[in-house]
Amino acid sequence: MVPETFKWLDGELVLLDQRAIPWETCFVTCKTYEDVAKAISSMVVRGAPAIGVAAAYGMALASLAGEDMKRARETLLSSRPTAVNLRWALERMDSVIDRSPDDIIAMAQRLHREDLEINRAIGDNGEALVSDGSVILTHCNAGAIATAGWGTALGVIRSCRERGKSVKVYADETRPRLQGGLLTSWELMEDGFDVTVISDGMAAWLMKKVSVDCVIVGADRIAANGDTANKIGTYGLSLAAKAHGVPFYVAAPLSTFDLSLSSGDGIPIEERDGDEVRAPYGKRLLPEDVEVWNPAFDVTPGENVTAIITEVGVLRPPYGVSIAKAIKEI
Amino acid sequence: MVPETFKWLDGELVLLDQRAIPWETCFVTCKTYEDVAKAISSMVVRGAPAIGVAAAYGMALASLAGEDMKRARETLLSSRPTAVNLRWALERMDSVIDRSPDDIIAMAQRLHREDLEINRAIGDNGEALVSDGSVILTHCNAGAIATAGWGTALGVIRSCRERGKSVKVYADETRPRLQGGLLTSWELMEDGFDVTVISDGMAAWLMKKVSVDCVIVGADRIAANGDTANKIGTYGLSLAAKAHGVPFYVAAPLSTFDLSLSSGDGIPIEERDGDEVRAPYGKRLLPEDVEVWNPAFDVTPGENVTAIITEVGVLRPPYGVSIAKAIKEI
Repeated sequence: MVPETFKWLDGELVLLDQRAIPWETCFVTCKTYEDVAKAISSMVVRGAPAIGVAAAYGMALASLAGEDMKRARETLLSSRPTAVNLRWALERMDSVIDRSPDDIIAMAQRLHREDLEINRAIGDNGEALVSDGSVILTHCNAGAIATAGWGTALGVIRSCRERGKSVKVYADETRPRLQGGLLTSWELMEDGFDVTVISDGMAAWLMKKVSVDCVIVGADRIAANGDTANKIGTYGLSLAAKAHGVPFYVAAPLSTFDLSLSSGDGIPIEERDGDEVRAPYGKRLLPEDVEVWNPAFDVTPGENVTAIITEVGVLRPPYGVSIAKAIKEI
Repeated sequence: MVPETFKWLDGELVLLDQRAIPWETCFVTCKTYEDVAKAISSMVVRGAPAIGVAAAYGMALASLAGEDMKRARETLLSSRPTAVNLRWALERMDSVIDRSPDDIIAMAQRLHREDLEINRAIGDNGEALVSDGSVILTHCNAGAIATAGWGTALGVIRSCRERGKSVKVYADETRPRLQGGLLTSWELMEDGFDVTVISDGMAAWLMKKVSVDCVIVGADRIAANGDTANKIGTYGLSLAAKAHGVPFYVAAPLSTFDLSLSSGDGIPIEERDGDEVRAPYGKRLLPEDVEVWNPAFDVTPGENVTAIITEVGVLRPPYGVSIAKAIKEI
């Protein structure tokens, strides 16, 4: 079984420490909103939907401590730049920002509960796209621990099994931080799935030699035209899928859409410390003096995305129309 | 300065231990042909042209020790399956196989010398394809230490500088064994080049955001139609280059061509131990119980290759014609 991503206990937020998975199951307790912001930026908690919920709880902690709520909001918002779910969650919290701590806590708990329901709905909507016996390739970790539970991309895979479909999963290891090799493999193995890890450079060859029925990934921000920011490596994977005629699905809640951006060109891409490439988790792979470039995300153009699986249904191109319609209806 | 890949000293073959680079400069001394076969399979020496020359010296050692030459040939030939330069070198050695040890040693030394000249010629032929100020992306290590010196892909880069052209190099780290992050970065830094390492999944995004003027890679075997086996990840890189209109060059000696194969479908692809992915060089990245797939090479279709840079000139499509002509002329 996969542990819960968050627990709200007596005015403290307890986070599964995802930097320690799969080696150890340990937890980080956040007592202040600053603790939450630090947990987000240092990737104790990661995954776009998960950091949205974590930030909501950060606001609850700020309120309990009688902190300046605007300042707390600002700090949490800037803890990571790419995933827009963070902003979305803070905007939801704005509706109660002047209310009592109890009301603010209740709202954070509501977002937490809702995210689980949303992931279930994404799974069920996506399941219809996958045939029994499919080989599915995924990138990074868009699983239970990237959300409040069930997962987006991995939620689709879970829903397939729930409906009696057998699937075989390949997971890109996802350098530099190896979320696929560490988190996705662990999460799926814990849950009894058949999962094989490949190095990122093997994905195109897997499509050619083994055959892949579909690629399913999560997202950190989707522009109005369907351009999708997700973990670095997703864009190259989409090019390989396109070249092989493999359907490329993005599974994400509506909170991932940023209609203020007409295209992905405006999505801010976080660049992280080069030591993530040189010495991930302190394991020295490359010398200190090697120069590296370490963008944490890339943008896949909407034209490479076969469909976007959301809680309100499966969106198809032209995304300008289908996304606007989906957002308007909620 | 980059140390020599091989030294022939008083009847022993001294190999630079490429598993220790860049951490230590140490050497492995081979006293028997079995030592050489083991050095090839364990990747003390790697790179298609380099393992060809190493195998030739292996035959020299067998001859000095009065070994069964057929058996030595067989063992060396099967030390690694994908690079055809190994077979080519052993076929060159066949012409002297019944002669004295001195003649056999002389032939191995001749192949060694020739390889350096061939690399120089490849560099000079390729240099004409690269403009001053270019950004070049390479994969794995097709450098001085993958050959008798100068290098194939990196030889082109060296020849550019020799002719006064300035170039900026990006090197894919090349999981699982990180030859780009360890060997190429080291070799180019030692030689004063501007080199930045990226994780393999960043290559497509580099082309989109930073812009890449050309990709140059080496090769382990090229079929009669231009299909090219090279380090795993090359195929995906070729798809990204194609999608961005970036010229994709393969730099390789004629000994890399295998005209017995009409296409890349017949090229044997070595699959190596999964621990290379899980714990490269003993550094534990993924748990032991994670299932992995570890093909060491992939095949890039000739249609994705803009040109093949050889010692006799730059070959262009249709490769069926240009390759046959180049081989015939030598």
